Amino acid sequence: MQRYFIDQAYQPSVEISGEAHHHMSRVMRMTVDDQVFLVFNDQTAVKAKIVAIDNEQVTLEEVEKDDLQRELPIDVTIASGFPKGEKLELIVQKGTELGAHDFIAFPGESSVAKWDAKKQQKKQQRLNKIAQEAAEQSHRQVLPTVNFASEKELIAHFTDYDAVLIAYEESAKQGEQAQLVQTFQQLKAGQKLLVVFGPEGGLTPKEIESFQTAGAKLCGLGPRILRTETAPFYLLSAASFYYELQH
Amino acid sequence: MQRYFIDQAYQPSVEISGEAHHHMSRVMRMTVDDQVFLVFNDQTAVKAKIVAIDNEQVTLEEVEKDDLQRELPIDVTIASGFPKGEKLELIVQKGTELGAHDFIAFPGESSVAKWDAKKQQKKQQRLNKIAQEAAEQSHRQVLPTVNFASEKELIAHFTDYDAVLIAYEESAKQGEQAQLVQTFQQLKAGQKLLVVFGPEGGLTPKEIESFQTAGAKLCGLGPRILRTETAPFYLLSAASFYYELQH
Repeated sequence: MQRYFIDQAYQPSVEISGEAHHHMSRVMRMTVDDQVFLVFNDQTAVKAKIVAIDNEQVTLEEVEKDDLQRELPIDVTIASGFPKGEKLELIVQKGTELGAHDFIAFPGESSVAKWDAKKQQKKQQRLNKIAQEAAEQSHRQVLPTVNFASEKELIAHFTDYDAVLIAYEESAKQGEQAQLVQTFQQLKAGQKLLVVFGPEGGLTPKEIESFQTAGAKLCGLGPRILRTETAPFYLLSAASFYYELQH
Repeated sequence: MQRYFIDQAYQPSVEISGEAHHHMSRVMRMTVDDQVFLVFNDQTAVKAKIVAIDNEQVTLEEVEKDDLQRELPIDVTIASGFPKGEKLELIVQKGTELGAHDFIAFPGESSVAKWDAKKQQKKQQRLNKIAQEAAEQSHRQVLPTVNFASEKELIAHFTDYDAVLIAYEESAKQGEQAQLVQTFQQLKAGQKLLVVFGPEGGLTPKEIESFQTAGAKLCGLGPRILRTETAPFYLLSAASFYYELQH
């Protein structure tokens, strides 16, 4: 069933215009009695049915609440050094399916991609659209956002989180295996985790030092070397397995 | 450091021609004393240095063994119903990085993609090439293979495995959470797990029944609905987290 994120607080009966109306009426050709999922901006999710639809707006009424908890118990933010090509699109799409709470893209020292402010703005719009589509498809109750930051701004935000990890290839090579499990054991439901991933060339020793000085811990993700866009999938899947299947 | 899979058993000194020679001499422009990783077909991995190189072949000698175990303790085979477009390429590339032992592609009843024998052969070659590149990049000690099978052939192979799971979207919707953890708890190092993933339209009730009759168990992968190409990443990451980080 189609899912729509509605930018207003929960109400049992709503009138919707704009993009969601267009999608229901034009793209999906829905009519009275058709059902959809609505997710309000307070995270309430309901199954609703169309009671009226015209060229301007659609009116929906709640059928029942969607009570299954679909969000990871901890909020995981993925920070990615600008990767090449369309990899950020892949990270945001799959990362949203896998439960990421938010994304931050930053220019790593090794990043080949150099995006000016205008390009960043365009890319950000596109990435937020991808996050929305993936959130609808995967039945999320939270709509992840994508933001751009400088490394300095990223570090300044470390204090917003209960733990900050650096996914570090050298940790994998050296067989570091304990930090991720320890971090999950420490973080309780409702707490916030930031994980920083380097671009293709990796994080530089200087970056690692800055991040560590600001409180981040190095963390391995198993013994295989993962590409920059694959590592976040591992992290999020492991978080889901730990918090949603094991505990 | 570059990594090459060598189709012969381990020897401390080897002469190599063909594709690996071409890659070292032409693509990487390597010379005497340059070092590479070699992985023999008995899974022995060594760091080796070039002692001679000409237009025909390259001679390498072992510097030291690569003793870090990089393979998942259990062998995980990913069976995917033919997905759309280039998604099988993505599954094989990322699945190889994440540790899959092998891949099987089969025509699911809901598969939109219809590939005839000729197309399958071409696709299989391409996918095996992708697996090799990903295996080299991620420092694998086993080179995963990609095979095509009919559903009947796939089911006939169930008995080759110690456990067979079906990643089933409806399980996720119903909040099934126990099967994957149970299966991991039961499987010991060296045992074999097959996990079947449907194409975009999902597996049909008839397919599910055939698989279950042959001994497969339904398994949820958390409460979010994952795309057909994302679900294998979750499975493999969870296996790595369980066997390589937690135990």
